[in-house]
Amino acid sequence: MYALDDTHDPALESWVESANRPCNDFPIQNLPFAVFRRAGSAEAPRGAVAIGEQMLDLRVVHELRVLRGSAADALEACTGSTLNAFMAMGAGAWSALRKALSACLRRGSPAASALRAALLDQADAEFVLPAYIGDYTDFYTSIHHATAVGRLFRPDNPLLPNYKWVPVAYHGRASSIRVSEHSFARPMGQILPAGGVEPVVGPSARLDYELEVGIFIGAGNALGTRVPIERAEEHVFGLCLLNDWSARDIQAWEYQPLGPFLAKNFATTISPWIVTLEALAPFRVPWSRPAGDPQPLPYLDAPQVRARGGIDVQLEVALQTQAMRARHDPPHTIARSSFRHAYWTVAHMVTHHAMNGCNLEPGDLLGSGTQSGPAPEEAGSLLELTAGGRQPLVLPDGDRRTFLLDGDRVVLRGWCERDGAVRIGFGKAAATVLPAAR
Amino acid sequence: MYALDDTHDPALESWVESANRPCNDFPIQNLPFAVFRRAGSAEAPRGAVAIGEQMLDLRVVHELRVLRGSAADALEACTGSTLNAFMAMGAGAWSALRKALSACLRRGSPAASALRAALLDQADAEFVLPAYIGDYTDFYTSIHHATAVGRLFRPDNPLLPNYKWVPVAYHGRASSIRVSEHSFARPMGQILPAGGVEPVVGPSARLDYELEVGIFIGAGNALGTRVPIERAEEHVFGLCLLNDWSARDIQAWEYQPLGPFLAKNFATTISPWIVTLEALAPFRVPWSRPAGDPQPLPYLDAPQVRARGGIDVQLEVALQTQAMRARHDPPHTIARSSFRHAYWTVAHMVTHHAMNGCNLEPGDLLGSGTQSGPAPEEAGSLLELTAGGRQPLVLPDGDRRTFLLDGDRVVLRGWCERDGAVRIGFGKAAATVLPAAR
Repeated sequence: MYALDDTHDPALESWVESANRPCNDFPIQNLPFAVFRRAGSAEAPRGAVAIGEQMLDLRVVHELRVLRGSAADALEACTGSTLNAFMAMGAGAWSALRKALSACLRRGSPAASALRAALLDQADAEFVLPAYIGDYTDFYTSIHHATAVGRLFRPDNPLLPNYKWVPVAYHGRASSIRVSEHSFARPMGQILPAGGVEPVVGPSARLDYELEVGIFIGAGNALGTRVPIERAEEHVFGLCLLNDWSARDIQAWEYQPLGPFLAKNFATTISPWIVTLEALAPFRVPWSRPAGDPQPLPYLDAPQVRARGGIDVQLEVALQTQAMRARHDPPHTIARSSFRHAYWTVAHMVTHHAMNGCNLEPGDLLGSGTQSGPAPEEAGSLLELTAGGRQPLVLPDGDRRTFLLDGDRVVLRGWCERDGAVRIGFGKAAATVLPAAR
Repeated sequence: MYALDDTHDPALESWVESANRPCNDFPIQNLPFAVFRRAGSAEAPRGAVAIGEQMLDLRVVHELRVLRGSAADALEACTGSTLNAFMAMGAGAWSALRKALSACLRRGSPAASALRAALLDQADAEFVLPAYIGDYTDFYTSIHHATAVGRLFRPDNPLLPNYKWVPVAYHGRASSIRVSEHSFARPMGQILPAGGVEPVVGPSARLDYELEVGIFIGAGNALGTRVPIERAEEHVFGLCLLNDWSARDIQAWEYQPLGPFLAKNFATTISPWIVTLEALAPFRVPWSRPAGDPQPLPYLDAPQVRARGGIDVQLEVALQTQAMRARHDPPHTIARSSFRHAYWTVAHMVTHHAMNGCNLEPGDLLGSGTQSGPAPEEAGSLLELTAGGRQPLVLPDGDRRTFLLDGDRVVLRGWCERDGAVRIGFGKAAATVLPAAR
């Protein structure tokens, strides 16, 4: 786990002035990575690092030859159309590049005048997936979500006996993951009408979002090898926001006995910026089990996980209906939660995933599962917020929602904040539901 | 669906004499594709086509410039280290290349003398995965398997109500798929002892194989689009054998509510050769539902599926224990079945997978699910053959098996045979279970 160093110094300011504003997601203490091309261009995508409202084009930084040594090698791996090669280099390379860019972006850096040539506005960028995602695995780490959803699907048996022992997960679909702002059509599917015994085919009428954290694997492990819990975080490049769009009616009919399939694999939205674990070092929190719960099995237990295994990423879901957009009303916040409530940490997910020798590869994505908090208003899905569609959510204009309607836009945001540290943001993962394609 | 043409002519013989032997898997009527390098070399892999006991190195064929037109373009796409580019070209390109190679390999072809330079023994090749597999989806198309396994996991509720309506599937792990002859270590996992309430961690004691057919997607569909059932097979490049190794004890504890995960993702073995749908044209069979079962919903129903949707691939599982290997005893056949028994066809799988707009990509792999036939001795897994481990299988030397022991080698074979057609084989998918890594 990363120690605090001068890149986290709250007093640090950048010569990029927009980075120094108080409520900005991308201060010089953050420096998250993405892949982009100029909006509307057919350019080859390349890596970028965010700074305030701007970003550094890492291909241009590379051409400027302002970095030396291992940071320069790491930088070169960010000039292609995915970050997989950079991710595969491991924590030393990620840290070397972040530290070097931190030095170059500080107020007074002699590199400032040269680097201005690599700076562009984020508003002028079109983001693409930051990595080629070979495999995507979705966990289920919020016990509050598992209990609430379990109650709807299995009223007599909400939390299954394995939950407190196994970091439950399933494989998701990698091909349909898109970066923020890619809209998608409401899925068609087989749906069992209430009280019916034969399914009908039609557009999902219970389309939902799921508020999740995405975890990008950096260095992988070879097939047949395990990842000790003490070293799990060395395999993690960084975190993003993830919306695991879910069609609840399709899910209810299809999911037994092998789990969700078409209810989930039509679209998954992630935020473009990956915030590194190093940038998140000031926001680590102790992790523990509620009194009376079983302690993790030895392969999932380590002092450093108990001491600092949690990450206090504050999370928010906002909804903007078509009517709100027409009136230029901003998205309305409908739920807030935090990743600190997760029953299993990032390290648990990585170590469990590889305990049987399964190989994780650079660029693989893990989803945290819906991050619902302990309070009902902290629920990370409409399924929970509306009690399975029975209690509509009332929006400020009086409009009501049980599930998402066409034209609804869902915006996930995340950030870290605490006394004595500069706020670190994740940007957003947003997308709009389009009508089903007939 | 492919019509019969002169490439299927049973009278056709090759100047490669080993291809003309009666019980050979790779007559000139077959011509399956694989990717290989010379055994023990560090060469870049490239495509190959099997002919008898030999194979054509497609990079050398390309350099010889014996093909022209669209066949030459298709050939060029087979010279890289995966077949994804060739698969993406679509059915016209696959057929053009197969027909051109069929012409060149016939007895009397003027290309014979030049092509000898491209010929090598299969025994001298080391096979690699034929494609980069972006996503792997495993179906559950044998109702006999679903019922038998359902009875073990849920005695009161063996076949779930969705089975006859939904081609049930789940996403599998792409990174741990390996080609035949890659051995793997018995997986460790969480296991709930019989009668216990707390899991223990240890090597799986109920390691099993699953006899499946693998289906390689050729041309994909864009995200948000569907694949009409009438056109589903145009997206299918070909078939292989697939062993979905399964740790039953890990599976029983982890699989609810989101499906199998670590019980399956430690290893999947496929045969190196992909047999094209065109080569399988003589072995298509009608597909229908048992009387009284619901007919497929309209999006899954088409006259050509009913007329020729099935494929009569005969399947076989053989087991060779360490003791048998020491005595040079060949693998002993423990079950036989056929893909013709599948409750859902290849076309159903493809169309259902994309019905919600999910994008299939060239090189994606679908598993058929365990292909158990209607008779008990046609079961495609030890779980079924041994009634959940209660009735050991007795081998010819008196050795007994409920589940696999270390050193056991499982060999899957497949072939098509009928009067008036030349036998088409799939080769084999084989691997040996190694002791768990401690």
